[in-house]
Amino acid sequence: MSQCLPPSAIDIEGFDQLFAESSRIGATPAGGLHRLAASREDGQVRDLLSQWLEAHDLDVRVDPAGNLFGLATFDPAAPYILCGSHLDSQPTAGRFDGAYGVIAGAVAVARVSRLHRQAGVAPRFNLALVDWTNEEGARFQPSLIGSSYFIGELDAAQAHAATDAKGVTLGQALGEIGYLGAARVELPVAGYAEVHVEQGTGLSERAAAIGVVRSTWAAIKLSLRFNGVQAHTGPTPMAARIDALWAAARCIDATRRLSDEFGSALHSSVGKLDIYPNSPNVVPSRVTCFVELRSARPALLEEACARLHSELDAVASATGCGYQVLSEQVRAPAHLEPALGDAVQAICHELALPCVDSVTVSGHDAISMSRKYPSVLVFIPSEGGIAHNEGELTQERDLHNGLHVLTEFLYRASIGRLAL
Amino acid sequence: MSQCLPPSAIDIEGFDQLFAESSRIGATPAGGLHRLAASREDGQVRDLLSQWLEAHDLDVRVDPAGNLFGLATFDPAAPYILCGSHLDSQPTAGRFDGAYGVIAGAVAVARVSRLHRQAGVAPRFNLALVDWTNEEGARFQPSLIGSSYFIGELDAAQAHAATDAKGVTLGQALGEIGYLGAARVELPVAGYAEVHVEQGTGLSERAAAIGVVRSTWAAIKLSLRFNGVQAHTGPTPMAARIDALWAAARCIDATRRLSDEFGSALHSSVGKLDIYPNSPNVVPSRVTCFVELRSARPALLEEACARLHSELDAVASATGCGYQVLSEQVRAPAHLEPALGDAVQAICHELALPCVDSVTVSGHDAISMSRKYPSVLVFIPSEGGIAHNEGELTQERDLHNGLHVLTEFLYRASIGRLAL
Repeated sequence: MSQCLPPSAIDIEGFDQLFAESSRIGATPAGGLHRLAASREDGQVRDLLSQWLEAHDLDVRVDPAGNLFGLATFDPAAPYILCGSHLDSQPTAGRFDGAYGVIAGAVAVARVSRLHRQAGVAPRFNLALVDWTNEEGARFQPSLIGSSYFIGELDAAQAHAATDAKGVTLGQALGEIGYLGAARVELPVAGYAEVHVEQGTGLSERAAAIGVVRSTWAAIKLSLRFNGVQAHTGPTPMAARIDALWAAARCIDATRRLSDEFGSALHSSVGKLDIYPNSPNVVPSRVTCFVELRSARPALLEEACARLHSELDAVASATGCGYQVLSEQVRAPAHLEPALGDAVQAICHELALPCVDSVTVSGHDAISMSRKYPSVLVFIPSEGGIAHNEGELTQERDLHNGLHVLTEFLYRASIGRLAL
Repeated sequence: MSQCLPPSAIDIEGFDQLFAESSRIGATPAGGLHRLAASREDGQVRDLLSQWLEAHDLDVRVDPAGNLFGLATFDPAAPYILCGSHLDSQPTAGRFDGAYGVIAGAVAVARVSRLHRQAGVAPRFNLALVDWTNEEGARFQPSLIGSSYFIGELDAAQAHAATDAKGVTLGQALGEIGYLGAARVELPVAGYAEVHVEQGTGLSERAAAIGVVRSTWAAIKLSLRFNGVQAHTGPTPMAARIDALWAAARCIDATRRLSDEFGSALHSSVGKLDIYPNSPNVVPSRVTCFVELRSARPALLEEACARLHSELDAVASATGCGYQVLSEQVRAPAHLEPALGDAVQAICHELALPCVDSVTVSGHDAISMSRKYPSVLVFIPSEGGIAHNEGELTQERDLHNGLHVLTEFLYRASIGRLAL
């Protein structure tokens, strides 16, 4: 017999309503979502969330990185169990990535808080919901700005200085939507939980309802600048051209061919270029290439990266373009807190939800948080693994399963039943 | 003994002053010019020119494409000899490209008009100066919008609809700077003259002061759209990706390699890409590639273009990305009016200026105009052939030579000494 809280019709309905309402803000005609970080739409959905949190007796706070918190403080001296995700999306992306974890988190925190308030006894831990700023890294680079700020890996000045393609800084953009907090929200954190859509097919292939993420792939993110010489594409003799876009094109091809060589153990991509001057009849003088290499195996990743650098040397010599590494982020494989993952597994067992261990290829706020706090990341299935695409889909049953598991996790964590 | 008008100190000084003053509007720290079409700076330099034209008794008119005219009308029933070039520049480009021809044209028209007014006899032809809108095609595509509108190859609606990277249309931008004329400026045109910097080394290699452009290279300008599928660069298996940027990269490389194969008779380039969504962790779904192929030999150009298409088919099959040709502009080699070129040659001979026949690889407003009116394009030397670069340089002596030749040409043309 399950010792878990029973499903709550009122909370499921609350989740469905809030998720549907939030999905309308930035909705695309094809049923997706276009809600870039700190855009007008991001401001509108934050307003919606803030009002919902206040209506459910949660205390709304915003920090200088724009992270939006909803606090349930039972004992001001106690640490918090934090849960959340992000409301920003990629351009023309799906409705579930990030938004699901914030809405499910809000509903779960509200229910558990209500139970504690009704019981009239302060639990061992306080609870909080968070919407992290700019997880996606689409409008502003790098990704994961909000959670990186929270754990102290990025300071407010760095976060504010991130600049979009039109020259607007994140600091300005947050100010414009009214979500530039004045002071750090000082939260002693005992643990962090996040539910998220899988963005892969691992769960459905194993007929699982829930995945407990145990570890991550490693990643190397490079931004490379190729330096050419601006010239007229007409009269300038071909031999005299030093074409930064040609060099970048060969870098893109070399990056792609790496994964042919290293097989499916390596994912490689260039998703973004910044080109200057980007005029049809000017040989480009500066091109920045955003390269990603990902693998579960750090040694393979290192080998692939070395191989890329030797390809880049060949590109430089063939094109005459020098290149420089503007930034290099190395993300070692992370291992999430086993005890918290085991706790989720136990809950799934009690709820008779098929649960498997999982691994994440992509970055998540939970991975940032895991570097400082005991953290758990819970996946629910994605139809066909479609991600960063308007066709992203997760079935309602799966959404409700994740909500149920998260609610039970927060309940047990708050009363001290988990090792935190 | 030369029958030419002698150099005029007051006009040379007027040219130097106006050129220096105009060069300060949009000046870059490195001594170049950044004055995109219909930008604030373009508005400022147009204001400067308008005031100068009015101060020199020329009648200022603006048409719906933003073309700015300065008319010297001696006989309302007579046709006009038109001369000019363009005040817009590429990003971080040089001070001479276009601006020289407008300023020299203004000074030449003003001097010749003054002479006729002082003589008190209406010459056979009226005179006019023109600053053509968006010759460069940097901020707005296509290039040569103003002169294409004037000769009727583009209508006002098409000109106004051209849109920059921030979504601003040329119509809006012209309105904002106050240069959106209400009605076509109806000018019966007898001939067109333009002086321009060479943007190559042909003149200096042959120790010539003046080049008479007799013909142009042919060109094919393609915009190609590659269609991929938006996906997450992390978890999406490599085999499942349809990456439009990878396809574009291979197109850029194939375009470049064409000129290795066809030798120096072919110039080929990709100077601009539009990438969507251009986010570091999203596989791009749509990339538009702006390809240019240029050659003096149409047959070779056709062969190169066919070869490019077969390469594109191979790219499509290797990457899984379909592609479509969004637009294809074919510019046949143009031949400018021989009699006008001969007249310039005769003037140079009388002025003892070494003069050679020349060819232009790049497009110019004079080439557009030559499709409808007898036209002449006169080159003066460019140091090192540097173009579309802040390092562009032409010596003062060469600037003054060009001014002198243009003034004499306009004088002779206006009194009916040339076959027009």
